[in-house]
Amino acid sequence: MLTDTKKTSTIPVYNSYTGEIIGSVPQSSEQDVMNALDTAKKGEAIGKKMPASERISILKKAVLLMEQEFDVLANLIATEGIKTISQAKKEVTRALQTMQLSAEEASRISGATIPFNAVPGSEDRMGYELKCPIGIVVAITPFNDPLNLVCHKLGPAIAAGNPVILKPSDYTPLVAIKFGEILFKAGLPKEMLSIITGAPEYFGDALISDDRIRLISFTGGVTAAKIIQRKAGLKKMVMELGSNSPVIVLSNADLEDAVQSCVSGAFFASGQNCVGVKRVFVDAAIYDSFLKKFVAQTATLKIGAPLTEGVDIGPIISKQALNEIDQFVIESIDHGATLIAGGKKIGNSYIPTVLVADCNNDIANCKEVFGPVVTISKVENLEQAIDCCNKSPFGLHAAVFTNDIQNAHKAINGLECAGVMINDSTDYRIDAMPFGGVKLSGIGREGVKSAIEAMSETKVVCFKLKK
Amino acid sequence: MLTDTKKTSTIPVYNSYTGEIIGSVPQSSEQDVMNALDTAKKGEAIGKKMPASERISILKKAVLLMEQEFDVLANLIATEGIKTISQAKKEVTRALQTMQLSAEEASRISGATIPFNAVPGSEDRMGYELKCPIGIVVAITPFNDPLNLVCHKLGPAIAAGNPVILKPSDYTPLVAIKFGEILFKAGLPKEMLSIITGAPEYFGDALISDDRIRLISFTGGVTAAKIIQRKAGLKKMVMELGSNSPVIVLSNADLEDAVQSCVSGAFFASGQNCVGVKRVFVDAAIYDSFLKKFVAQTATLKIGAPLTEGVDIGPIISKQALNEIDQFVIESIDHGATLIAGGKKIGNSYIPTVLVADCNNDIANCKEVFGPVVTISKVENLEQAIDCCNKSPFGLHAAVFTNDIQNAHKAINGLECAGVMINDSTDYRIDAMPFGGVKLSGIGREGVKSAIEAMSETKVVCFKLKK
Amino acid sequence: MLTDTKKTSTIPVYNSYTGEIIGSVPQSSEQDVMNALDTAKKGEAIGKKMPASERISILKKAVLLMEQEFDVLANLIATEGIKTISQAKKEVTRALQTMQLSAEEASRISGATIPFNAVPGSEDRMGYELKCPIGIVVAITPFNDPLNLVCHKLGPAIAAGNPVILKPSDYTPLVAIKFGEILFKAGLPKEMLSIITGAPEYFGDALISDDRIRLISFTGGVTAAKIIQRKAGLKKMVMELGSNSPVIVLSNADLEDAVQSCVSGAFFASGQNCVGVKRVFVDAAIYDSFLKKFVAQTATLKIGAPLTEGVDIGPIISKQALNEIDQFVIESIDHGATLIAGGKKIGNSYIPTVLVADCNNDIANCKEVFGPVVTISKVENLEQAIDCCNKSPFGLHAAVFTNDIQNAHKAINGLECAGVMINDSTDYRIDAMPFGGVKLSGIGREGVKSAIEAMSETKVVCFKLKK
Amino acid sequence: MLTDTKKTSTIPVYNSYTGEIIGSVPQSSEQDVMNALDTAKKGEAIGKKMPASERISILKKAVLLMEQEFDVLANLIATEGIKTISQAKKEVTRALQTMQLSAEEASRISGATIPFNAVPGSEDRMGYELKCPIGIVVAITPFNDPLNLVCHKLGPAIAAGNPVILKPSDYTPLVAIKFGEILFKAGLPKEMLSIITGAPEYFGDALISDDRIRLISFTGGVTAAKIIQRKAGLKKMVMELGSNSPVIVLSNADLEDAVQSCVSGAFFASGQNCVGVKRVFVDAAIYDSFLKKFVAQTATLKIGAPLTEGVDIGPIISKQALNEIDQFVIESIDHGATLIAGGKKIGNSYIPTVLVADCNNDIANCKEVFGPVVTISKVENLEQAIDCCNKSPFGLHAAVFTNDIQNAHKAINGLECAGVMINDSTDYRIDAMPFGGVKLSGIGREGVKSAIEAMSETKVVCFKLKK
Repeated sequence: MLTDTKKTSTIPVYNSYTGEIIGSVPQSSEQDVMNALDTAKKGEAIGKKMPASERISILKKAVLLMEQEFDVLANLIATEGIKTISQAKKEVTRALQTMQLSAEEASRISGATIPFNAVPGSEDRMGYELKCPIGIVVAITPFNDPLNLVCHKLGPAIAAGNPVILKPSDYTPLVAIKFGEILFKAGLPKEMLSIITGAPEYFGDALISDDRIRLISFTGGVTAAKIIQRKAGLKKMVMELGSNSPVIVLSNADLEDAVQSCVSGAFFASGQNCVGVKRVFVDAAIYDSFLKKFVAQTATLKIGAPLTEGVDIGPIISKQALNEIDQFVIESIDHGATLIAGGKKIGNSYIPTVLVADCNNDIANCKEVFGPVVTISKVENLEQAIDCCNKSPFGLHAAVFTNDIQNAHKAINGLECAGVMINDSTDYRIDAMPFGGVKLSGIGREGVKSAIEAMSETKVVCFKLKK
Repeated sequence: MLTDTKKTSTIPVYNSYTGEIIGSVPQSSEQDVMNALDTAKKGEAIGKKMPASERISILKKAVLLMEQEFDVLANLIATEGIKTISQAKKEVTRALQTMQLSAEEASRISGATIPFNAVPGSEDRMGYELKCPIGIVVAITPFNDPLNLVCHKLGPAIAAGNPVILKPSDYTPLVAIKFGEILFKAGLPKEMLSIITGAPEYFGDALISDDRIRLISFTGGVTAAKIIQRKAGLKKMVMELGSNSPVIVLSNADLEDAVQSCVSGAFFASGQNCVGVKRVFVDAAIYDSFLKKFVAQTATLKIGAPLTEGVDIGPIISKQALNEIDQFVIESIDHGATLIAGGKKIGNSYIPTVLVADCNNDIANCKEVFGPVVTISKVENLEQAIDCCNKSPFGLHAAVFTNDIQNAHKAINGLECAGVMINDSTDYRIDAMPFGGVKLSGIGREGVKSAIEAMSETKVVCFKLKK
Repeated sequence: MLTDTKKTSTIPVYNSYTGEIIGSVPQSSEQDVMNALDTAKKGEAIGKKMPASERISILKKAVLLMEQEFDVLANLIATEGIKTISQAKKEVTRALQTMQLSAEEASRISGATIPFNAVPGSEDRMGYELKCPIGIVVAITPFNDPLNLVCHKLGPAIAAGNPVILKPSDYTPLVAIKFGEILFKAGLPKEMLSIITGAPEYFGDALISDDRIRLISFTGGVTAAKIIQRKAGLKKMVMELGSNSPVIVLSNADLEDAVQSCVSGAFFASGQNCVGVKRVFVDAAIYDSFLKKFVAQTATLKIGAPLTEGVDIGPIISKQALNEIDQFVIESIDHGATLIAGGKKIGNSYIPTVLVADCNNDIANCKEVFGPVVTISKVENLEQAIDCCNKSPFGLHAAVFTNDIQNAHKAINGLECAGVMINDSTDYRIDAMPFGGVKLSGIGREGVKSAIEAMSETKVVCFKLKK
Repeated sequence: MLTDTKKTSTIPVYNSYTGEIIGSVPQSSEQDVMNALDTAKKGEAIGKKMPASERISILKKAVLLMEQEFDVLANLIATEGIKTISQAKKEVTRALQTMQLSAEEASRISGATIPFNAVPGSEDRMGYELKCPIGIVVAITPFNDPLNLVCHKLGPAIAAGNPVILKPSDYTPLVAIKFGEILFKAGLPKEMLSIITGAPEYFGDALISDDRIRLISFTGGVTAAKIIQRKAGLKKMVMELGSNSPVIVLSNADLEDAVQSCVSGAFFASGQNCVGVKRVFVDAAIYDSFLKKFVAQTATLKIGAPLTEGVDIGPIISKQALNEIDQFVIESIDHGATLIAGGKKIGNSYIPTVLVADCNNDIANCKEVFGPVVTISKVENLEQAIDCCNKSPFGLHAAVFTNDIQNAHKAINGLECAGVMINDSTDYRIDAMPFGGVKLSGIGREGVKSAIEAMSETKVVCFKLKK
């Protein structure tokens, strides 16, 4: 169920590269949220009785429909969002996998039998865990992966039998709405999905604090996360927040490979990526060489219109975001960083930017910048590099380039984060793996299987039998 | 590390049956909490490097020391707490099992390898999940199982390699402190445990809201839980809250067995038990007979001093709690309930109380009473009984007495709760099983294995290999 | 790779209902087997290096091709095999699911990390289990599910990365060969599948005893199984053998439902089904009524040509098999059984046959009959019924009709078998579940996940790290 | 139940170092085996009904009794067996852990619920896997770890609820009998353990081929394994056989560490160890240096009486075994190997022997020698080393010394074996890990958890429910 679009109040949706208006969506009201909750409560009862076979059938049909609408979905991502068309196509492919995985995991929701009879006095019991739908899920999603991150919440929610109220980013609601239509066409009962759009200040706290909501799955920034947490009351929360992912490059690494991975990881989607490379700590022995190659490689990136073939760098999502990136660069320099490349806007894009700073730079090393800015630092050894990485209050992914077993495992154990990639960029992820962060980077884990677990409640069943 | 007891400010601890002062504990200050956090931060680094073998060794030594101090622990429980001595001994036995289980599970902390190579483009990856300590754990525990519920938090925390700041109930700090001493004697580094005692208003929000805390494990009431949730900021929370656990007795059940289980489940620990039987829905066909037998059986319970052999009903934890129970009975009657037995205090005890009400009684059927009060209702059939059960905002355990397969599974599926006992009381639990509630009864699951999972972070490790 | 069909020596394949020759297949020689082994050895190296993504791709393409060839496959089953066309279509649907499941499980082959650091002296180790292809698999399959049982071996083998040498039943090689063609078309390397056809006496023991074979997966009869076991040497074996599956019907069961399930379970595929109902033990209280209804229901079954719509009972696979069924009936009667219905052939079919006997009848109660013959026995109580069931040397599936919880669990615990169905026929099976037998009914378990486990070797990896 | 020792026919047990007779055990007859089987059949019924709590209690009491008898057990191992007293004490410590682990795993025997409702047509089903005792287990154990390998079979068998007939090595029956006494004292019912002693030719095939036996767990040589396999008929088999474990030492390894590990791994227990280092492939760049250090380190080993403090090399188990070692050395030299050190007997001991050979030496590289003989080969690179390792028909453990990630994972993937140790000897093992071999080294896996799985049967339970 979408919020009724016949109502007069709507908000525009923009082409983020050109700034043109390309559509509009309803500005949902508090009443819309209450209606969505009433609907979802009915959806809860439906989901609870819907056998896995039916949930699987809906998910599989959705996959087929997504394949049919592949280009429509990719174009929406590349227009209202910030990805180039080839990046957008990759996202649709990933989104398809996420939904396919959700269908597959829906047939594997299983508990364990509980060995009650191992406990003295309980010898005559037998029982097991049932996994039950948790109930109403509120999903709040960001603009940067506007389809796949929706799929990462709705796929598992449907797989687990839960109704969802989806609040997509104000910047990228159209692809979310298109996906909602696909789900309904695939057979999802209307009661199991509502989409709330528009600015949150118009519909207030109900979407967060209503007691009927059982889980909030939020992907976005730390500030919003803290507000949600404060207002949510007693419910489960899964939060995927920001980061400033670090890479360590040691002297025994394959240098070419490290440069290529780091440049790609830093500037994919113009750095508007929670696992994008933001900080690179390079062993002094190869530092000069690395920096030179990194800057040279960065210089080859082509800035332009997202729908143009061959473009690497598209727009930043908003003027405000552009300004925040600029501000980060300026403040980093104020705190001692040196600008090596980039450092300014072109239209709605931001030029790939390389800073050099040491890890005592409280801005460059500790703040999050959601744009194409990477800070490179020289380090004396692995221990120092690990300490620098851990200075950040975030902890999502980290990466290490090395061919040495001891170094690799020392880094794996020492880095405070939720994923360590050896010889790869921090933005490596497959949709089946547990995904999330520690420290300020988040609470809980997504990834289809992990999300289904989070969206299910364990019910212990115990039969007392006569001997 | 205990808060320094040489400070002048302390609070008394009472024998809850006689009201005599039996000891005192420090009234911790905000500075004490900050000290505890500084200490715990050091403990975090220690825990992270402590191999499982050492954690296991500490836990196993603690088990041996608890066995040596069995009687001391049981007497503390039966004195500052509300259990009779035989109930207290059962708790110490359970607590031993909880710690033994923690030792055993500490050697089974394991992740899975991740089949990266199933994803096109990732064929050259290999990797796995590491389970890492989550960091500083704040454990807040109640008076009713003052030792075992502490063990359910500290055992898994130590097993997982985490430092803990423990805040036991103001009513029952002595057994918690005694247990802390045992842990230190068993080799737990001082940095890995601090105990904060006294009224929370004196040390403010730091124990909840400090960013260094990674997980709050709380067992207690809904009101406190909501405050904690609001103040906690971005951290993980596991909450075991209240309930008013229902039992359904169908006509094809073993009546004698049902009566016995329900009386025991309702009045164990004077009903001060989050899984105690609070509501019984009885099929009309056997209602009269059930009620008669239930009242008769209840009448045999002996009220008295907890340390006296043969006593079934000891004290209520406080005057305030006594009054709340009284209030619940009075309001239930105001809303239409009939008092069948009990309904008044004797000294610091409350007489086992039987109400009869229908499930539209908003007090008797929907509020939690933490005392020896049970409400019995007549129902026409299983469907009605399930609806009545689900009217409550709580959802911890439920129970059904029946010998019919269809009825049992209909109830298992229909009851909104986290545990369904067939032919047993709602207060059945083994320490190895997942334990927790849905709706207002809680967030997340305890039970040693589940708690270790909650107290660990998954770190994904991925090696990109050359082909 | 199929055995070269240009060779002169072939054997005919028959329409099992009409006896007409419908095709021919090579009579493989010992040299053919040796060639197949040489080929498979190359396939082993290929499979070992083939990433899961590629195995999945092959399996998914095979599913699509099977859908395209649905009718061809169903007609082959209903012609060379013994099923009616509607039964054959069900088998193709099941076979599709088996292959789809194999594709899905291929992306879930995973081991666990091993908590080495829990062991004193091993604190500096980290490691995990890898699951590796076991190597050459020989699959020997029977006539009764000539496609799905092939899929149950080839699907998991491919999923796990193993080459297979398939020896289908001499009666039903065509559907197996057709399926082999589909696999090659789907991209399976020629080296990963060879099909050996014809009578085993012409190619000798090589297919069983060659040391390069790592696993024999056999579905068939006990006699052949014993020969294979004796000749196999040191290799893994998974064996799904026969049974004479028992059903217990208690007085508190739904009688109509029990009759319907038992008749269907007894006569599906003319009883040529390893989990078909062969023995029914009925509580004395309802025995007369059950028997009357059972015979009446049996009388409605229509015998005829498998391709004719509405036919329930098709042919028996061979004259020899027909005679063996006849012999079983005659010997059962000799040992005291009474013939109630059926008991003779019509063309290549056998009339649905009902015997009444007690469980001391060494033939009716202990031998396997692979045809439409069911023996019904009166029992005094559940205990006696369980004893009667367990007298058989077989132990595949059993079933119990009851609505009583105690009876159900008593039967579940007491029956010596590998699957207990409550209120359903013994021939219930889903392709994802572990499937196999105890006692003479088999060794090991199939079902896609279990088969992949059996077809994989665990390789422990342990890194000793510097502290 | 031990075979009745009052019978006249006994066989002597020797001190394997001095050759003195130190005791005698019955020479069991075929009748003894049949009696043991009758007894075990009763034990099967007892085990099936024995709750896990009771099995755990027996296992835990056995651990306590083993601790009390620690020195007795160690002395028996060092006297009738081949270990020095310090090696024997290590074995008793390991055996204690194995039994403790068995107790712990006995409370974790659990299946999974089966998501039947994911399959169209099965929406109304619910069910799960039960893990049931497999039935009578025959355990056949070797002389080299005469206590721990018995524990690895009896611990899991008891944990899983199975009766055992144990046939220990003729050379080391006394420690097995002592352990049997401990088990009975710990409360194991007499029907659940029988010990058969003496030469197998006197009691014939019954111990292998009787149909009542459900699983044979054999640890020993390939020749015996083949005979068992041929005679066993339809039953499950787990076999841990021999090996000639290879080590690869690459130029980027820590050389001192590699030498020390290899010498220790080669000569522990005089090389009478199935995971002992038998072959070392050294990178040409460090070959000379490695060889020199290896020989020097080997020269420090002290040969002498096992009970004498400081002795490293005790006896070989028998004259025949001594001759076989000698024969292996002579034949290896005949095939081109060069003797660098050792190569002859002293009393009942064999001097630590170093051969140099290339991997085309069919004896040194492909045969198993159960004694203190190691062959060192020069290789050009990792690929060649892997090929050389894989030439052997065995595949138990392998090891690689390297600090390079790519080399490590290339070796892990390429080596045909069941365990790869990086920077450690092949004889590294913890009792909790899956243990076993591929190719001629065995079938299936031991290790407590794996053994319990092998010794259990999965019983699928499925309830068909009314909607």
